Amino acid sequence: MENKQELQSLLDRTAAVCRSLTGSGRQATYIPELATVDPSLFALSAVTLDGAVLSSGDIGARFSMQSMSKVMSLSFALERLGYDEVFSHVGMEPCSEPFNSIMKLEMTSDTPLNPFINSGSIIMAGLLAERLGSGVIDEMLDFASRMTGNKSGLAVNERVYRSESSTADRNRALAYFMHSSGALSFEVEKSLDLYFRLCSIEVGTDDLAVMGATLANAGKNPLTKETIVSVDTSYTVIGIMSVCGLYDESGWFAVKAGVPAKSGVSGGIVCAVPGRMGLAVFSPPLGKGGNSVAGVEAVSRLSKELKLRGI
Amino acid sequence: MENKQELQSLLDRTAAVCRSLTGSGRQATYIPELATVDPSLFALSAVTLDGAVLSSGDIGARFSMQSMSKVMSLSFALERLGYDEVFSHVGMEPCSEPFNSIMKLEMTSDTPLNPFINSGSIIMAGLLAERLGSGVIDEMLDFASRMTGNKSGLAVNERVYRSESSTADRNRALAYFMHSSGALSFEVEKSLDLYFRLCSIEVGTDDLAVMGATLANAGKNPLTKETIVSVDTSYTVIGIMSVCGLYDESGWFAVKAGVPAKSGVSGGIVCAVPGRMGLAVFSPPLGKGGNSVAGVEAVSRLSKELKLRGI
Amino acid sequence: MENKQELQSLLDRTAAVCRSLTGSGRQATYIPELATVDPSLFALSAVTLDGAVLSSGDIGARFSMQSMSKVMSLSFALERLGYDEVFSHVGMEPCSEPFNSIMKLEMTSDTPLNPFINSGSIIMAGLLAERLGSGVIDEMLDFASRMTGNKSGLAVNERVYRSESSTADRNRALAYFMHSSGALSFEVEKSLDLYFRLCSIEVGTDDLAVMGATLANAGKNPLTKETIVSVDTSYTVIGIMSVCGLYDESGWFAVKAGVPAKSGVSGGIVCAVPGRMGLAVFSPPLGKGGNSVAGVEAVSRLSKELKLRGI
Amino acid sequence: MENKQELQSLLDRTAAVCRSLTGSGRQATYIPELATVDPSLFALSAVTLDGAVLSSGDIGARFSMQSMSKVMSLSFALERLGYDEVFSHVGMEPCSEPFNSIMKLEMTSDTPLNPFINSGSIIMAGLLAERLGSGVIDEMLDFASRMTGNKSGLAVNERVYRSESSTADRNRALAYFMHSSGALSFEVEKSLDLYFRLCSIEVGTDDLAVMGATLANAGKNPLTKETIVSVDTSYTVIGIMSVCGLYDESGWFAVKAGVPAKSGVSGGIVCAVPGRMGLAVFSPPLGKGGNSVAGVEAVSRLSKELKLRGI
Repeated sequence: MENKQELQSLLDRTAAVCRSLTGSGRQATYIPELATVDPSLFALSAVTLDGAVLSSGDIGARFSMQSMSKVMSLSFALERLGYDEVFSHVGMEPCSEPFNSIMKLEMTSDTPLNPFINSGSIIMAGLLAERLGSGVIDEMLDFASRMTGNKSGLAVNERVYRSESSTADRNRALAYFMHSSGALSFEVEKSLDLYFRLCSIEVGTDDLAVMGATLANAGKNPLTKETIVSVDTSYTVIGIMSVCGLYDESGWFAVKAGVPAKSGVSGGIVCAVPGRMGLAVFSPPLGKGGNSVAGVEAVSRLSKELKLRGI
Repeated sequence: MENKQELQSLLDRTAAVCRSLTGSGRQATYIPELATVDPSLFALSAVTLDGAVLSSGDIGARFSMQSMSKVMSLSFALERLGYDEVFSHVGMEPCSEPFNSIMKLEMTSDTPLNPFINSGSIIMAGLLAERLGSGVIDEMLDFASRMTGNKSGLAVNERVYRSESSTADRNRALAYFMHSSGALSFEVEKSLDLYFRLCSIEVGTDDLAVMGATLANAGKNPLTKETIVSVDTSYTVIGIMSVCGLYDESGWFAVKAGVPAKSGVSGGIVCAVPGRMGLAVFSPPLGKGGNSVAGVEAVSRLSKELKLRGI
Repeated sequence: MENKQELQSLLDRTAAVCRSLTGSGRQATYIPELATVDPSLFALSAVTLDGAVLSSGDIGARFSMQSMSKVMSLSFALERLGYDEVFSHVGMEPCSEPFNSIMKLEMTSDTPLNPFINSGSIIMAGLLAERLGSGVIDEMLDFASRMTGNKSGLAVNERVYRSESSTADRNRALAYFMHSSGALSFEVEKSLDLYFRLCSIEVGTDDLAVMGATLANAGKNPLTKETIVSVDTSYTVIGIMSVCGLYDESGWFAVKAGVPAKSGVSGGIVCAVPGRMGLAVFSPPLGKGGNSVAGVEAVSRLSKELKLRGI
Repeated sequence: MENKQELQSLLDRTAAVCRSLTGSGRQATYIPELATVDPSLFALSAVTLDGAVLSSGDIGARFSMQSMSKVMSLSFALERLGYDEVFSHVGMEPCSEPFNSIMKLEMTSDTPLNPFINSGSIIMAGLLAERLGSGVIDEMLDFASRMTGNKSGLAVNERVYRSESSTADRNRALAYFMHSSGALSFEVEKSLDLYFRLCSIEVGTDDLAVMGATLANAGKNPLTKETIVSVDTSYTVIGIMSVCGLYDESGWFAVKAGVPAKSGVSGGIVCAVPGRMGLAVFSPPLGKGGNSVAGVEAVSRLSKELKLRGI
């Protein structure tokens, strides 16, 4: 097990150095609400498998999960509907097209490549909305709260939700396209609505690090000791995080940091290092690949210092 | 460190069960020489980081490296030419197109996505052939021999080489296309010639498992104790193996087995499990993704039994 | 000038023979209202440049213009907004993708290839809706009535319009996609609404043949003698009809019939043979390219008999 | 029939004006021999269906046919092998990709879209080379000489041929790719060799205008009165010229000039105006679409003055 004092000290040093390493990164603006966030915020959390939560930086910072919610949604879908049903709707291969590409769908006229690109995630949302009915969002918020160990309970940030919903041309195009091709067999606007709500769930780095630690701990939340997902689900989610967690920079990140992770355009990155820990970082300025510049740097440094790859 | 007796016993049980799990797999025939191999062969090797070599099955089986040679070539190129020069010619992202796709190149009119797809590997070969001149193949065979700890020295199987070279329409198309676009700035036929030779290097599973163990050991061959590549090179090669080692089934393999690996159409798979061991398996029948059916099964079982993911 | 008696006799013979030449053609069903049309209907009209209207078959048959409305819309847009503004929004090149392809747009991230594919036509509708405001549909119906010489005035078939509007996933996807990329800078739902209305304008073959004759007569309606469009507009519209009037079978039709034409999925084809005549045919069963099987056959036969290519 | 004196006068005026209208056009340089041609040359020829040959400008200028040879090759193939065999190997639809695109082939994994793009033309050459054996080039030169009415006999320009052959990366890529996919079932290097020779046939504008006039005259050479091709072959070749004769500017040319034509990168354009005349123009500077800038301008002006569209 990790030495807590050394780990806290490492987090502090990493936070101090990386906070300013945002290069030419710029925070996302295509969803208006994201543009209002303070770009200088920086927070870093680690959660060990024996349940210690360590943080550094702007610890109280709250932000929307955006694509990091896909880790939670996939976990939830696998638990509620099973591997076979989930993967009858989406694949599990990395995608070398931009995350919101329609082309790939048109050429394969098939299912989306994986549940982390927008098309696949919208289908997941549609599937869950149809199977679970109107209570779906409450049930998922409850699941997310248990996965993150958040006792107050996670909630949707309504301003972000409305902002997403009203500036969603590309996602709307994806959904209508998939509905026309049959890939999305659920109601278009209902699928999109759940998708936007999930992206808008508000969290802090502590929440995310516990979520990562839960997967890294084979499905058992190390804080609450509750089993959230099965070992097989944790294998599946971690496997997909490792090949396609950082959009078009997933390979670069596998070389640079070498740990399973998922980023979001709000500037967060959540990592699940199997058998070791969960990690989360938040810094809004994004590089051209859509990933937090300082976040990638922080995870890479921690990976080397802590030999998170195993070497 | 692993218990050798238990590990040998596990290998024997795995070999016994997986040998016949080839499903509807069929060995590759597009290179005529590959079609002459006995499809019922099965071999499995593990090499621990303290230098133990354990094997099971048809231990003496020899086969061509095919795409597994790309692990060695990339390691060699990184050591000889450096990270910056290598990645000015190819990327490091997974590719959702078939491994021999030209389309992707035409649309991006840029460099190949990674050094493990044919286009990227042909460029690596061209680059090395130009930089190192006529001695390149001898130098690379020497490197491969040291990386695999093979004392007799590895060699090109001339029949396979001639067979590859004379049935290479698609690779030839790729090379001429890249030459026309400028992505391949080296002589076409010379680039292809080295590429074919590298694919035709003959090995056994012991050789491959040592190669994997060398990377898993942060670059130091655990048998000979020689440092073959730097820690950074091992990070880079392992990172790319983890996102795009099994063609269009890299994500599925990350879920199923969860270890960095590279397959070849001869039916082999080489794995580098950082901090744990190297693994190699050989069974010619391939699934529709071009990966050894029994090989994938064997690695997946070992991964679970040995908790190679860390959980 | 054409001999009217011989021409009428030729139309009668052609109608008699072609009516049943529908092969394995099937009428369009993706817009529910189109599926309710009697598939055995067949009508054929020719309008000479001296103003004779000759018809044969089910002369009273009425049907929606569908994509044939794009001939009228383009003519109208060129007259009202001018060549430069129109072609700042769309190109004028044939498209080798299906008419409702998004891929092409994504790869070029540019303007649609031409105003006859759905994407280009939706932009035309959006442009006209924005420039002309709420009166746009009335103004266009008036223009269409004058171009077809229809004294009662053309009108939108409301049932077809509602049917189009409620089953338009692909067109909606196209529009949202183009809005996200900036190709469509007009309001999405307003653009689609006008587009659906224009597709739903109800006509007979006489109307269409006069419309074709107007273009064939360098812009002057041969019945009413009114100048509807300029010579340059007739050149432009006829030029685009000749290269991309029959979807993915435009080349085949240029070989088989060799006259500028535009088809619609309702089963109609309108032709403008410059200096000779306008032609229109209606028969609902479509071949796999989306063109009226009997219609193509009838036009081809008339083209040969009347040497409409000039030889 | 055309008034010869007026026509000559029109050609002279057109040549005088258009010679300098090359805008920012630049002659092709990717085939080194093409770069050696004097860019200021300009020649224009018209051949009426009663056999008058009228020319203006640098009448003696000789240049290679390049893609204009595809008109002759297609005519020849249709006559020797028949419509069905030819169109079992290529389609007849316009292509919205660049003329030397491989992508289109990969996505359809099918036959090339038409015989005027490089891929389709290489297959035509391979087909003819296989069917007719080693005498194929002599037989085609004889056919070309009869189609152009050239009594001295047309011949391959050997310097251009060698230049094409040694700088043909993209065509070689296309051919190897099609061989790997099965679209090209003939020997790759033999197919390319004939293709390069055909592109290198040397002509003047008189030759080309007679070739165009032969098609415009329904297959009968208006000078020699010899029937070169059937009426159906002339329909087919003219039809394909009208939809895809000017690469990616075929639609624009159909609007601007409105006559069936085929261009070549040497700077020539050959036109067949059915029932009216053949036209040819030569001026090396090309626009960004690969078509002679002054040539397009000259044909457009003649089309308007002579009402070659029929209006």
